[in-house]
Amino acid sequence: MREVAVIGIGQTPVREEWEKSLRLLAGEAVLQALADGGRRRADGIFVGNMVGGAANNQQHLGAYIADWVGLRYSEAVHLETACSSGSAAFRAALIAVASGELDSAVTVGVEKMTDSPGSEITTALATAADADWETDQGLSFVVLNALLMKRYMHEHGWKHEHFAPFSMNAHANGVYNPNARFRKPISMETYTKSALIADPINLMDASPMGDGAAAALLVPADQAPKNGNYPIIRVAASGAATDALAVHDRPDPLWLSAAEKSAQQAYQQASLTPKDIDLFEVHDAFSIMACLSLEATGFAERGQGPRLAMDDEIRPTGRIPIATRGGLKARGHPIGATGMYQIVEVVQQLRGECGETQVENARIGMAQNIGGSGSNIITHILKAG
Amino acid sequence: MREVAVIGIGQTPVREEWEKSLRLLAGEAVLQALADGGRRRADGIFVGNMVGGAANNQQHLGAYIADWVGLRYSEAVHLETACSSGSAAFRAALIAVASGELDSAVTVGVEKMTDSPGSEITTALATAADADWETDQGLSFVVLNALLMKRYMHEHGWKHEHFAPFSMNAHANGVYNPNARFRKPISMETYTKSALIADPINLMDASPMGDGAAAALLVPADQAPKNGNYPIIRVAASGAATDALAVHDRPDPLWLSAAEKSAQQAYQQASLTPKDIDLFEVHDAFSIMACLSLEATGFAERGQGPRLAMDDEIRPTGRIPIATRGGLKARGHPIGATGMYQIVEVVQQLRGECGETQVENARIGMAQNIGGSGSNIITHILKAG
Repeated sequence: MREVAVIGIGQTPVREEWEKSLRLLAGEAVLQALADGGRRRADGIFVGNMVGGAANNQQHLGAYIADWVGLRYSEAVHLETACSSGSAAFRAALIAVASGELDSAVTVGVEKMTDSPGSEITTALATAADADWETDQGLSFVVLNALLMKRYMHEHGWKHEHFAPFSMNAHANGVYNPNARFRKPISMETYTKSALIADPINLMDASPMGDGAAAALLVPADQAPKNGNYPIIRVAASGAATDALAVHDRPDPLWLSAAEKSAQQAYQQASLTPKDIDLFEVHDAFSIMACLSLEATGFAERGQGPRLAMDDEIRPTGRIPIATRGGLKARGHPIGATGMYQIVEVVQQLRGECGETQVENARIGMAQNIGGSGSNIITHILKAG
Repeated sequence: MREVAVIGIGQTPVREEWEKSLRLLAGEAVLQALADGGRRRADGIFVGNMVGGAANNQQHLGAYIADWVGLRYSEAVHLETACSSGSAAFRAALIAVASGELDSAVTVGVEKMTDSPGSEITTALATAADADWETDQGLSFVVLNALLMKRYMHEHGWKHEHFAPFSMNAHANGVYNPNARFRKPISMETYTKSALIADPINLMDASPMGDGAAAALLVPADQAPKNGNYPIIRVAASGAATDALAVHDRPDPLWLSAAEKSAQQAYQQASLTPKDIDLFEVHDAFSIMACLSLEATGFAERGQGPRLAMDDEIRPTGRIPIATRGGLKARGHPIGATGMYQIVEVVQQLRGECGETQVENARIGMAQNIGGSGSNIITHILKAG
């Protein structure tokens, strides 16, 4: 297959968007990405979204968005893998262009959550868990993550406060991202004293929902503009794996097998190891998820995720910077859009556009997007030059 | 890209399945397809579904089904393009295998509609139309199709009874399909005297919903078993195109541009013309859709679809047999599954397994799956030998 480059990116600020439909949000990001890549069209559009049908009365987002952005008649499709829907769309677009089936494709992740009743959103989000064996028993996503975090603390001897650096790093970085939902640093005291949601998860462990869209334009790498303001950003690898949908079906609930497998696929494709990765946009929907993801992908020993964070290694100046633009925690987590925000942010880092949170000499960036409580995980590696 | 073959198929009868979850339905079809193809695993699973989130409280169908059928850890993704979701999933699987990204893939279309409240299903189906400009104005799918049919009758001078052969052919063929929802032939009198739903569409113009799943196993053609009971079934072409989501945005609402474009792509890929097609599994969600599809794909002159049907050319012995296993009208239309039923039925024809409705010497079969009221149309051509 041919090599593919990301030549354009676009994103809307993650916030409450009561005045804009899914169409308007997605359109803004797509048109930005096309303009950024110097194109007016793409052969296909791949849309990542999760709750459009339940919360916005709109499915069929491929045709819906294609026409709006001037791509009427182009192929268009909507992909869904719960919270990793954005990356699933990116991966489908990537394969379409790499294979030669399409000569260009735009991917957009979009979600609009804040002007629906809270109960409707909670119900919609719960469709990512196992309806028969989790949701119907009363388990919500935050509860599932609380159970994981509690068990993790028990097994490895950490206290709640040891997870603070994940949240503090994300919020510190979000300050400098104009598209982040929250742009205030938080203190240790804020972290420890925040309202409990589901013991031990408090408000500062949980990412906020939000409305937003992020998009990327993919073309064969040999068609990427040369001598631009930044190096060509190539997609070096794409890996995807699943795990049991219900957490209780996994032999080891504290090990994200799908994160490990998709990352290993990606490392092998790119002939890289974790040591080669300059930054990692991690799926910190909850502190515990950031921690488990770092372990399963080879950046921390098992049970030692909090240690990596406490040693400041996850900051922009550390060994493996994560959430460099705020992550899910501070940039926000508009479910089906999140994976595309991660990709866009990695591109920004590799272009050297991240100002105060720029990772020095960033050449290789990784993004990992987690669907459900670890049941559908997609990992991409991008490379500058 | 390498050539791909369908080596296994599976399907459940379309009916009311109050005792089976989405997982059980999809699982039956997938396991049949794997067994039929003589395999125990596939590298990836691609799921087509539309209303799972709204009607079954279950999204994230990739991981949900993968684990159930013994494919835990495999890549798995859910695709949605309204009523053409099944074909969208097939096309994604095809590209993944053709490109070499995966060495095998199973596609399943699945839908479960009959044990949810009718109002919930109507609301869920309406998410395939334009929420802002159609649904919120009170347009439902049957109403949109009624407007098209009325206009078509006005423009081309046909009466309602001239559409009878579409319905009569579908029901006549459905009699011999053990998986069809309705297995009774209908008379001209039944057609003309059926209850009106939305003038001029009556019960016999509209396809019934239902629960069901259909699946196919794809591998590189050079890995297809040789010297089996039937020829190798190759995927000769795949085309996909969109149109404006809202019907009123189309310059010519009576011309399915996306049907024409996706079919033309397919003809070109396969170096074929409509004359070469031995049978055509058409998307007869409503009589008018079968008619418009036949015209846009080159089987009838504009405005002459009913003539083709009245001349008996759409029967299994005619020039272009359609709905050979009952079509959406008699086999049933479990939305996200329909596209995969069409593919499975084309494979059955090319294998020569269709008994009383077998098309003689069928070597090349086409399936066209329509999402929304013509806004996302996917066309596949399969070839025996």
